[in-house]
Amino acid sequence: MVVNMTILVTMPHDEVIKKRFTDASPQAEFIFCDEGKALDQQLSKCDIIIGTVPVKRLVGLEKLKWIHLSKAGANEYVELSKKGVLVTVSSGAYGLAISEHMLGMLLMLMKKLHLYRDNQNSGLWNDEGAVDSIFGATVLVVGVGDIGGEFAKRCHKLGAYVIGIRRMIGMKPDYLDELHDMSALHELIKRADVLALSLPGGEDTHHIISRSELEIMKRGTIILNVGRGNAIDTEALADFVADGRICCGLDVTDPEPLPKEHRLWYMKNAFISPHISGFYHLKHTHDRIVDIACENIRRYFDKKELLNLLDEQTGYRMSDNRA
Amino acid sequence: MVVNMTILVTMPHDEVIKKRFTDASPQAEFIFCDEGKALDQQLSKCDIIIGTVPVKRLVGLEKLKWIHLSKAGANEYVELSKKGVLVTVSSGAYGLAISEHMLGMLLMLMKKLHLYRDNQNSGLWNDEGAVDSIFGATVLVVGVGDIGGEFAKRCHKLGAYVIGIRRMIGMKPDYLDELHDMSALHELIKRADVLALSLPGGEDTHHIISRSELEIMKRGTIILNVGRGNAIDTEALADFVADGRICCGLDVTDPEPLPKEHRLWYMKNAFISPHISGFYHLKHTHDRIVDIACENIRRYFDKKELLNLLDEQTGYRMSDNRA
Repeated sequence: MVVNMTILVTMPHDEVIKKRFTDASPQAEFIFCDEGKALDQQLSKCDIIIGTVPVKRLVGLEKLKWIHLSKAGANEYVELSKKGVLVTVSSGAYGLAISEHMLGMLLMLMKKLHLYRDNQNSGLWNDEGAVDSIFGATVLVVGVGDIGGEFAKRCHKLGAYVIGIRRMIGMKPDYLDELHDMSALHELIKRADVLALSLPGGEDTHHIISRSELEIMKRGTIILNVGRGNAIDTEALADFVADGRICCGLDVTDPEPLPKEHRLWYMKNAFISPHISGFYHLKHTHDRIVDIACENIRRYFDKKELLNLLDEQTGYRMSDNRA
Repeated sequence: MVVNMTILVTMPHDEVIKKRFTDASPQAEFIFCDEGKALDQQLSKCDIIIGTVPVKRLVGLEKLKWIHLSKAGANEYVELSKKGVLVTVSSGAYGLAISEHMLGMLLMLMKKLHLYRDNQNSGLWNDEGAVDSIFGATVLVVGVGDIGGEFAKRCHKLGAYVIGIRRMIGMKPDYLDELHDMSALHELIKRADVLALSLPGGEDTHHIISRSELEIMKRGTIILNVGRGNAIDTEALADFVADGRICCGLDVTDPEPLPKEHRLWYMKNAFISPHISGFYHLKHTHDRIVDIACENIRRYFDKKELLNLLDEQTGYRMSDNRA
């Protein structure tokens, strides 16, 4: 029964989205507020939160039974989960937006569009010479979850030879030419024309690309990073980019924001976007988050297991019941 | 018989490429020279030229029977063809290079990577807001030859709804959702999120996108042009880009080079590359041109019809015997 249940929704909403939520649980009382604008009194009276509220504001809320976060990685909510609050995440919503961003960065670097943009700003009609192709390139995707998997699919469709690395190997999907576990990383990066990192944070992934990995890569390898900035040793990367040995496209950096004076900003063969490939920047992402949240509301009141429950080991969703 | 035949090759060549040519016609005498470096005495003694030599240097060469050009569009060689010299072109070699360049420009504009590059040059960590997606976009490709067709395929694989326009309709390939002839252009551009032009030069295509077409496009339509610059009325386009109504990615402009002082260079929502998406910039293109040229050499000496014969009407290859 859904008596006296209050659901606070703190994600962007219009009338269509409001109706989708209220239709998912007609008996519950809904409070809608803008993102980042929830009042203490609203938080203290709600049983369920749909949206991302900083974890420090949730500690000690006695009525709170479940929070569905709009993001995919949620390390900082592990403690809350351990205290008995259900935590679910929105993994599965970001694959399209972030994989297309990765593909855009890759083609930009391969075709030297970043250099042509720089030339354009000076009105310079100048040929920058040879380019590379996705077709026939060897693309190594480290972290083949929703985002890495969607990127791998796109590279496969465009004619690349795609190698995946995953913590738990399992079945090899058709869009991968090879699938390995993390122990193969060192050997595989020698073969990569493109190295794409889409990894969660945590000790296991900290600096998995450091100076010793950069040393053995092919000259001209393009590194893409959309997971966590600290998967790469930033200073080592900057040395290799400065030497012209590596190109990189980064949507995440370490630290974030990257300080204005950091040399990586000003390197010809680095492209940096400020951790914007996700969020609600693509309407499709927003729609998918609402899909997952509404499905979870129905499941909650039907007493079925929720989708995308937080894995307390990884800070991401558990491998069962994925959205 | 191949007695006394001299073939002049004026395209970039290494020992591997030299051997491919000499293997294609062991009996002929070959002269290899760097592109643009053929001497008058070399031109006057050759029966066949493989490579692009300016047409004005070919007038009056008495021995010349056939030239295979390294480019795809060759309007200026129509007169030579009419005088009885066989002219063949390298259509079919550029699809990969140019379609990937188009895809790169498209994703760059959709994901605002050009704006992030500008911000990067000032060390600015700044969110530029909402983005678009190829997935679900309506892409109108005007000119579905080798290049436009390869671009259409890629958009289809990435989840776009793809509409093609072709002079002669024929069979609709699977990667197109709709295929129309030129008469439908005016109606179709109203539906396009992306308008990609890959058209030959000539009177038929001059200013096919002018002010009246721009007026009826959706706000935010992205226009790509890789064919001939004068397919678009440059000043009309610049007005619409300045107003924020249209974005564009141009690898060709009218005039070329675009003068340093032209306002289009400096517009936020224009991206310009200096007619570089083709040439030999991708190794694959060079390999394909050599493939086509060698096949034609074998055909020439076997007295079979050559591939990619110049169509005197269009200045491109004829529709039969395509490489």
